[in-house]
Amino acid sequence: MKIALVGGTGDIGTGFALRWGANHDIIIGSRKADRAVESALKVAEVLGGEKGNIRGTDNGAAIEAADVVVLCVPYEHLVSATSDLKSFYSNQVVVSPVVPMSYNGKYFQFDPPEEGSAAMKAKSLLPEEMKIVSAFHTVCATALQDKDRELKADVLICGDEAESIDLVISLTEEIKNLRPLKAGPLAVSSMVESLTPMLLNVARRNKIRDAGIKIISERSNITA
Amino acid sequence: MKIALVGGTGDIGTGFALRWGANHDIIIGSRKADRAVESALKVAEVLGGEKGNIRGTDNGAAIEAADVVVLCVPYEHLVSATSDLKSFYSNQVVVSPVVPMSYNGKYFQFDPPEEGSAAMKAKSLLPEEMKIVSAFHTVCATALQDKDRELKADVLICGDEAESIDLVISLTEEIKNLRPLKAGPLAVSSMVESLTPMLLNVARRNKIRDAGIKIISERSNITA
Repeated sequence: MKIALVGGTGDIGTGFALRWGANHDIIIGSRKADRAVESALKVAEVLGGEKGNIRGTDNGAAIEAADVVVLCVPYEHLVSATSDLKSFYSNQVVVSPVVPMSYNGKYFQFDPPEEGSAAMKAKSLLPEEMKIVSAFHTVCATALQDKDRELKADVLICGDEAESIDLVISLTEEIKNLRPLKAGPLAVSSMVESLTPMLLNVARRNKIRDAGIKIISERSNITA
Repeated sequence: MKIALVGGTGDIGTGFALRWGANHDIIIGSRKADRAVESALKVAEVLGGEKGNIRGTDNGAAIEAADVVVLCVPYEHLVSATSDLKSFYSNQVVVSPVVPMSYNGKYFQFDPPEEGSAAMKAKSLLPEEMKIVSAFHTVCATALQDKDRELKADVLICGDEAESIDLVISLTEEIKNLRPLKAGPLAVSSMVESLTPMLLNVARRNKIRDAGIKIISERSNITA
């Protein structure tokens, strides 16, 4: 599969490239193509013998060449990664880990747009036929980049079409040992996106490093 | 300590009564005192030899007699449990596990009021000097009522005063083995309250019974 990591030169993009690089063609995108090329070379070097086909280019070319587009951008760049590049989108599945949030000096806040969530806003900014899946908001970028580290968090996934959701489930399962969980339609993405500022507040106040979220069952404690 | 469980004849109230009954005076409240008395008798019977002082009365009398008031009511009854009973409140710590949410036949939605959250609304409805702590939104009522079952979820706590937060931390720790975690000031309670509809959606779609939330650290997987 061809995966474009739009704005993929940062921590989260590098993490995905390292984790998916062995099985897929990775196209790291950036507003500046040379930064993306540099980033791709670094990832290829870390992967060494395991590397697939990893290259860097500008965001538009990355999107155009891909089957799956992952929006590795802060919320502030959502417009420049979607509607400003509309002509490069056609029938890709678009994955949004984007979280609209801010820090006021004391705590992180969730700042959803009028559409309710970043994913719903992305949907409104892209061609109507695009399939948007909301996922990976709480994955720990630091742990993701440590490519041999086994993870244990859950990835909560929102979307409206079974096929694109299944694709994201499968990408999640390639990252050992993340567990994909369906969280409902795109309309409830706000409840999944708001986990990120909540998690940052909790991690900071309780000194939890590389924090993640897990849904547990209290039944597994029942002794027969 | 004297703990009033307002609207405490339901699952969550019974659960708290069973878990705190050994160490505290529990006053189960209800709009109808006779229902509260009946509920208290049942709890006392389950606790048997372990029981402390457990009684039932109307909500107003329960609040008036208590040091800590836990609002065990659905969001729709928040006004009747707070401003309608304003004269019974004085200097109690008020714990809100209340979640404003709805189900549209397909999924659960978070429906925060204008104030941002149930806890912030409770604050606006109660005398100014009241200390409100937001907690226990995602505790599994079924597991809570099974008084010998060891739990493993986290309890996320929001509040503005260290002393009342510490009190709720201590009440959490009495329920084996819930872990209390500070999640920030009352202003961010919305992010904690919205966990409940999110969790219900995830539990249903992934067949997770008695679901709860846990904050994990991806660092504990690092092998030296």
